[in-house]
Amino acid sequence: MIIDELIDKIKQMENPTVMGLDPRYELIPDEIKNKYGTDNAGICEAFLEFNQKLIDSVYDIIPAVKPQAAFYEAHGLEGIEVLKKTCEYAKSKGMFVILDAKRGDIGTTSVAYSKAYLEDGEFQIDFMTVNPYLGSDGIIPFVESCQKFHKGLFILVKTSNPSSDELQNLKLENGKTVYETVGELTENWGRHLRGKYGYSSVAAVVGATHPIQLKELREKMPNTFFLIPGYGAQRRKSRRYCFSF
Amino acid sequence: MIIDELIDKIKQMENPTVMGLDPRYELIPDEIKNKYGTDNAGICEAFLEFNQKLIDSVYDIIPAVKPQAAFYEAHGLEGIEVLKKTCEYAKSKGMFVILDAKRGDIGTTSVAYSKAYLEDGEFQIDFMTVNPYLGSDGIIPFVESCQKFHKGLFILVKTSNPSSDELQNLKLENGKTVYETVGELTENWGRHLRGKYGYSSVAAVVGATHPIQLKELREKMPNTFFLIPGYGAQRRKSRRYCFSF
Repeated sequence: MIIDELIDKIKQMENPTVMGLDPRYELIPDEIKNKYGTDNAGICEAFLEFNQKLIDSVYDIIPAVKPQAAFYEAHGLEGIEVLKKTCEYAKSKGMFVILDAKRGDIGTTSVAYSKAYLEDGEFQIDFMTVNPYLGSDGIIPFVESCQKFHKGLFILVKTSNPSSDELQNLKLENGKTVYETVGELTENWGRHLRGKYGYSSVAAVVGATHPIQLKELREKMPNTFFLIPGYGAQRRKSRRYCFSF
Repeated sequence: MIIDELIDKIKQMENPTVMGLDPRYELIPDEIKNKYGTDNAGICEAFLEFNQKLIDSVYDIIPAVKPQAAFYEAHGLEGIEVLKKTCEYAKSKGMFVILDAKRGDIGTTSVAYSKAYLEDGEFQIDFMTVNPYLGSDGIIPFVESCQKFHKGLFILVKTSNPSSDELQNLKLENGKTVYETVGELTENWGRHLRGKYGYSSVAAVVGATHPIQLKELREKMPNTFFLIPGYGAQRRKSRRYCFSF
């Protein structure tokens, strides 16, 4: 179970931090930028060197990186190639890779996304974030891929942005909120992928900007491992996230 | 307003159909497959020829195509290049392109996705599907890009898959459902992008497998243009969708 391996690594390093890899050109140091052109190809080369240097400087103390797909897709095919090489590089240094892609679709389309990122293909990824709005049809194909290919998921249960309340906090007639319901679904989706620590490889994103909700969800989701965005300062050059279990 | 141009085209063609472009190798005719190798490069060449032939055969009677990003991403960088070339080809034939990517994130990340697909960059796309689970923070950056770059969105309000009920149909304590609430948010998100027909370039995906819900939403969302998946038979080789306004 990949969640066991991740927890083993967190315990061994005594560090539950995840490093975001969200490259934006304006945040790349000049000593890297100046080596390359300012066209898209140059920007992408600078991104890759920046990511590799970040990985070099933390791989022995931080267990995982989380590249955000959007920042690579924003630079087209060359950007997506940097994403691929970044994942490869992080894996070569023994880090876990969480692709923050927030994909979510149904049936054969979810199978296609699983094939893209969770099977043993072009991208070397251990976990992917997925969006639950479409319900079980959208999640089960990913869970099946995780089972087959020794991978994991992070389901968006409660996100950390201010307007996440608009939908996720709505109170249902049964007294629960939408995000609590997603939390229950997530516990259930992950029930066959629980490992030796009792946690499932179907994990959850839970925004720590809402500590009371976090505590409640922890009680209601005893078998779900959490990824908490916005832990500590959201540093300008590399955002930090934290695992909680 | 791009929605006006789309509606003009639908009126002119007297056809509200959208052709899905969701290539899967097992569904490609042998006469195309046999021309290329069976490795990933060959599969991608077959996909492109198949898509181009589909476009050739309908561009004068159908106003829009909807490529599903997952089926291209499943074939890695070569697959994503086919997506890019498919969009280019459809545009060169005068068709509207709706990228079914169901992206959704927040703040600078949504800006990055907008940059990837809605700005005048590598991909020639008119509309993109987006997921509303993160609330306004996740949608506004896309809406702003639409305003600036003359593009549009389709927000997932009610999807057509069976388990969409699990979350989208939950009844809130105020008597509304989750999807009705998303519908109201969508009307509001699109209020500054309404065109001459009264419809906004911020449009909605509404599953026609639920005709009563469709009727209710039409009443509650008078300014929102609908994309209806699952209209008519979901043919094996190219799925059909329909606009409704």
